[in-house]
Amino acid sequence: MNRISFAIVKESLSAILLRLGFSQTRAAACARLFAEASCDGVASHGLGRFPRFVAMVRNGVVDPVAEAEKVTGLGALERWDGRRGAGNLNAQAAMGRAIELSREHGVGWVSLGNTNHWMRGGSYGWQAAEAGVIGICWTNTMPNLPPWGGAERAIGNNPLVIAVPRSSGPVVLDMAMSQFSYGTLESYRKRGEQLPVDGGFDTEGNLTRDPAAIEKSWRPLPIGYWKGSGLSVLLDMVAAMMALGRATHEIAHDAEREAGISQIFFALNPAAFGPASQAEAIADAVVASLHNSRPATPNRKVRYPGERTLRIREENLRLGLPVEAAVWAEILAFKK
Amino acid sequence: MNRISFAIVKESLSAILLRLGFSQTRAAACARLFAEASCDGVASHGLGRFPRFVAMVRNGVVDPVAEAEKVTGLGALERWDGRRGAGNLNAQAAMGRAIELSREHGVGWVSLGNTNHWMRGGSYGWQAAEAGVIGICWTNTMPNLPPWGGAERAIGNNPLVIAVPRSSGPVVLDMAMSQFSYGTLESYRKRGEQLPVDGGFDTEGNLTRDPAAIEKSWRPLPIGYWKGSGLSVLLDMVAAMMALGRATHEIAHDAEREAGISQIFFALNPAAFGPASQAEAIADAVVASLHNSRPATPNRKVRYPGERTLRIREENLRLGLPVEAAVWAEILAFKK
Repeated sequence: MNRISFAIVKESLSAILLRLGFSQTRAAACARLFAEASCDGVASHGLGRFPRFVAMVRNGVVDPVAEAEKVTGLGALERWDGRRGAGNLNAQAAMGRAIELSREHGVGWVSLGNTNHWMRGGSYGWQAAEAGVIGICWTNTMPNLPPWGGAERAIGNNPLVIAVPRSSGPVVLDMAMSQFSYGTLESYRKRGEQLPVDGGFDTEGNLTRDPAAIEKSWRPLPIGYWKGSGLSVLLDMVAAMMALGRATHEIAHDAEREAGISQIFFALNPAAFGPASQAEAIADAVVASLHNSRPATPNRKVRYPGERTLRIREENLRLGLPVEAAVWAEILAFKK
Repeated sequence: MNRISFAIVKESLSAILLRLGFSQTRAAACARLFAEASCDGVASHGLGRFPRFVAMVRNGVVDPVAEAEKVTGLGALERWDGRRGAGNLNAQAAMGRAIELSREHGVGWVSLGNTNHWMRGGSYGWQAAEAGVIGICWTNTMPNLPPWGGAERAIGNNPLVIAVPRSSGPVVLDMAMSQFSYGTLESYRKRGEQLPVDGGFDTEGNLTRDPAAIEKSWRPLPIGYWKGSGLSVLLDMVAAMMALGRATHEIAHDAEREAGISQIFFALNPAAFGPASQAEAIADAVVASLHNSRPATPNRKVRYPGERTLRIREENLRLGLPVEAAVWAEILAFKK
């Protein structure tokens, strides 16, 4: 594992994106989002995902010059077309607009169709929280999970993000509908470890903690079995209906061809009904109640979602972003 | 198991509510919501919950004459005070208002504080879907689940409902954040059965399918372990912040005293951006994709959330609502 400074990572990615056809400004903004994901400890959707992103620009799935644009609006609601541009820049623009709308209307909703993978969903939750508003966003994906009762991948893992602003540190939930991602299954298998809880079915249809058995069956579990399966279906439906865009079943079953997906960005102004400090005090009290609750393991405090992020961010800014040597070599090769 | 006609159930409950101090109109509306829950196959939050509701009117937790009222509004957003009235009537009024707002603004959001248990959450999803709009609602609850990493109940099971209108049958997800409710654990224990999947920890801290062991430890599992725990925390925070109401940690740890909770009702007009038929076709295609996906058990089609409800409703309207004999006897005794 290497440690590379945030500035060098960002400059390197930006230079590559520039050569791929991004404008100077957009290359810098896109590079920043990748670097920030790694900086916040989500390398799987930061530097680790960059080589696939480059492949998708090269194969024409991601259009480096296309920018998301508003199609139509009705007060606090807008529908945008992502025009198959860079998914992270599209998502950032859509959440930015939802935040703006929430300042005027108390609430802002942007449906974004025809976009691409947003990389780290948490980025847009942090974006809202850092702007002082509650952010809720979700995306559909290609079919990568079997629905409950199903034998083949037909629903998406459809990440859902909910973020609450707090001056002492936002609370940010960023969760996919699968119990474990394929990336996590792969990591466990490579380390020769079993999963901590059942993660899917083996080819015989038995629940298992064996990552290799799940990779073989292509049957990872939705969170909460039938419940997460149902939530995935509803998130997909609402996103596609409100974006007038594609639903999961219409999205290519291939990570390098996954395109034209549908996303929702929703911002709520906690100051809509009173001073923001009153809403913040409510959030602070929930955090305190978690911290004060009795832990299952002595001396291991119960944490709130996203609690470790600020510490990880600070550490990675100080020491450099952790990057797997092979990934960094692959990225540097793009510069040649 | 008895079968009692919908009309007789509704009349009986209504007569009891009238004696408890409800007005004629509100007694009828409240009785209808309880009867409809049983009619749709959710007796646990219909007739099965009625005796506790009566107890809560008698002990003063539910005020039979209080009606929810608007405190303040800002365009598509409103904040309401439930005034500790009947939770199901409050919820119905709040969703009704969110639906109205969505017709004007495309989106409608009502935060409801100071209310009581809404009984069957799905009721308000069906209400939105039957009005032709997408409904999203959730509630916090008393602390009834340990957070991930915690040993004691400190978060709520915070049911979340998402409903999508379709002329051939709405899609309605109604799910709590616990994998199994205490009611379900009790049913399995009484039948001498193990749960189909792990449902919580035993007193030694091991995952178990034994319902009695989980009842003893008070450590049922959130869906998806750490994920459902996080989602519960965020739903609680957003509800309490936007209602300027109580969060889970402030709600009494006693089912008959659970009061002053916070809820969100959110309606989206699928016709905001185009003809409603276009959005409906998208939902229909998602349903078709599920029905056409390969089932894990041959000849057992993959279903969408809420798919069985219309059939159950029709059957119960035809044959009478199924009511446990003991529950019905308890209810009839209230009439004496």
